[in-house]
Amino acid sequence: MLGRTYEGQNCSAARTLESVGERWTLLILRDVLLRGMRRFGEFQASLGLAKNVLSNRLDLLVREGMLERHPYGSHADHYEYRPTAKGADLLPVIVALTAWGDRWAAPKGPPALFKHDPCGHDVEQVIRCVGCGDVSEPAEITAVPGPGRSSGT
Amino acid sequence: MLGRTYEGQNCSAARTLESVGERWTLLILRDVLLRGMRRFGEFQASLGLAKNVLSNRLDLLVREGMLERHPYGSHADHYEYRPTAKGADLLPVIVALTAWGDRWAAPKGPPALFKHDPCGHDVEQVIRCVGCGDVSEPAEITAVPGPGRSSGT
Repeated sequence: MLGRTYEGQNCSAARTLESVGERWTLLILRDVLLRGMRRFGEFQASLGLAKNVLSNRLDLLVREGMLERHPYGSHADHYEYRPTAKGADLLPVIVALTAWGDRWAAPKGPPALFKHDPCGHDVEQVIRCVGCGDVSEPAEITAVPGPGRSSGT
Repeated sequence: MLGRTYEGQNCSAARTLESVGERWTLLILRDVLLRGMRRFGEFQASLGLAKNVLSNRLDLLVREGMLERHPYGSHADHYEYRPTAKGADLLPVIVALTAWGDRWAAPKGPPALFKHDPCGHDVEQVIRCVGCGDVSEPAEITAVPGPGRSSGT
């Protein structure tokens, strides 16, 4: 079995994939962040996963600090899962994945649209230059070493 | 062994993960799109992967239409891998993964910075409302059914 780490990769994209690259984890976060789901049964109905797999993935997300487990109601063994700031900050990843899928893998049109609640318009994800403000062409972007470059893995 | 599909998920994020959620594929695309790499030996030096695994992942990316194989030089069996428009369009996903990792998994600072070549400034990834232009708070965004909603898996 392959591990979840990307050894030798001093790269923030690789670190992120180590935290949320496990199968189904990003879809659980999608349900939490964009569909307001909080409970085991809701995730199970949405994802159709075996209980042990879902339980394993929720544990992983709690361990990674993306979700917090809170008791609810009068049952000591009933929990709801709430996003942490760290988990909520993955929304741009989910929006970026969705935007690509809408363009390249949704021949019948986007299955879902993201709306900005306060005004009701669509939300888009863009890459822009903080200097000139241009929304950038991929070919115009290059990675250069940053301050954490020499810190090893 | 788990399959790569997310059955029952009529969701563009899930579709995207089916195309590029395999271990290492997004890091190969990172090397192609942001580090200008094109050749097997370059990927191998960058990723430290076993040849058979790397070869398998490159084949997958070609099959999925993300990369194109082109002969180079005088060796009939030497290829370079160039990004297609479909592959290049994954840059926002990589930028989003990197931004999260820079914030939450890079205690010594970002290992790499993305620069806008024409002006040399940093590039950032934002979610914004097409209506009011606000750069949105995650909590203000909701998913609603889109035109492709009823099309099944």
